[in-house]
Amino acid sequence: MRVAYNEQMTELADLLGEMAGLAGAAMEKATQSLLQADLELAEQVIGEHEKITELSVAAEERAFALLALQAPVAGDLRSVVSGLQIVSDIDRMGALALHVAKITRRRHPNYVLPEEVNGYFAEMGRIAVALGASAKEVLETRDPERAAKLREEDDAMDDLHRHLFRVIMNPEWKHGVAAAVDVTLLGRFYERFADHTVEVARRVIFLVTGKMPEEPQNESEDLTSYTQP
Amino acid sequence: MRVAYNEQMTELADLLGEMAGLAGAAMEKATQSLLQADLELAEQVIGEHEKITELSVAAEERAFALLALQAPVAGDLRSVVSGLQIVSDIDRMGALALHVAKITRRRHPNYVLPEEVNGYFAEMGRIAVALGASAKEVLETRDPERAAKLREEDDAMDDLHRHLFRVIMNPEWKHGVAAAVDVTLLGRFYERFADHTVEVARRVIFLVTGKMPEEPQNESEDLTSYTQP
Repeated sequence: MRVAYNEQMTELADLLGEMAGLAGAAMEKATQSLLQADLELAEQVIGEHEKITELSVAAEERAFALLALQAPVAGDLRSVVSGLQIVSDIDRMGALALHVAKITRRRHPNYVLPEEVNGYFAEMGRIAVALGASAKEVLETRDPERAAKLREEDDAMDDLHRHLFRVIMNPEWKHGVAAAVDVTLLGRFYERFADHTVEVARRVIFLVTGKMPEEPQNESEDLTSYTQP
Repeated sequence: MRVAYNEQMTELADLLGEMAGLAGAAMEKATQSLLQADLELAEQVIGEHEKITELSVAAEERAFALLALQAPVAGDLRSVVSGLQIVSDIDRMGALALHVAKITRRRHPNYVLPEEVNGYFAEMGRIAVALGASAKEVLETRDPERAAKLREEDDAMDDLHRHLFRVIMNPEWKHGVAAAVDVTLLGRFYERFADHTVEVARRVIFLVTGKMPEEPQNESEDLTSYTQP
């Protein structure tokens, strides 16, 4: 029983790591497709999204079977329950990468972004992918100290997001409303992607320590401060 | 044991219903504060948000205790696991209402919305609140047929959201980029709020029937079609 149990726990952990890897890869390709107006790459992200959904279903089923058949307690129970919640976060990360790819496809053969903000998205993409890799690492190592660092990495994303809003809102913005709307939505997608990686890290801290770190407040804060002079 | 168990299951269900009620009430007040530039009401939503967070924690702890102490199986296990996932959805609904209130506060004493789009948000608010009430009802009755209807109610939200984008993107739009950015984000908040109510309903269908209905595709679709002429 114990052997089967450990095997199933390992399989669940592996599924989560694999999902995080796919979500990160999807965001990497989606960002490249966005920056280069690369339709083929956008289509690839869209086509591959189903794989993340399939793994979500598989991971949920695995977690459910573990609860039903093994009735884990204490730390093991925390692992399974956190695993279920982590599935939702990673699933959402995949959906956000999908949104980026779909906007790219929609505007093709045009570029979505005015050249002026390319640098912001290159950097937001880089941070998102790094955060995705960190989340994967945290899932694999279960190191709570490493997990706690994701919030700092996310701060860089929030800063960029705020700067980006200042650029759009600046009276010098010459690219019109439609481009501003795209940039607004895209900025939000990257920021939410990063938030979900932080959430994954928080849940890993909980599953290891039994204590849930405080919820970060920055997501709502930056939404309300984006037009500060 | 069985009595304690049933009591705990009922308590968990009650907590979820209460959370859904609070999230709906928050969105109702947030919408009113948005439409009337009512700072006091916005502050009220912001101040009351903590209550939803507290109930989330309580519900998660309750679900966790149920799993640890009662090791439920089959339908009961589905109820508890779905309950955990529903907590996340309702928590997010509360956060989205909070975002609306914070944008209102940020712009006070100005109105956030150009008068031209007031009607859209009055209607999106109405639908969001109705969907919140439907989600609460579904949580209480566990009626899968009622639950299946939420998706139709959500279609009305998606239609409005698409129309709203057309208004912003129209060359006739006279309110500038900053207002368009606010409207874009707000539109997204209402649409996501509605999506989460649909997700709650899907999970109720799963917990009753053991089968998860297909994921709705409309969220991503409308994001990519908002500039159709």
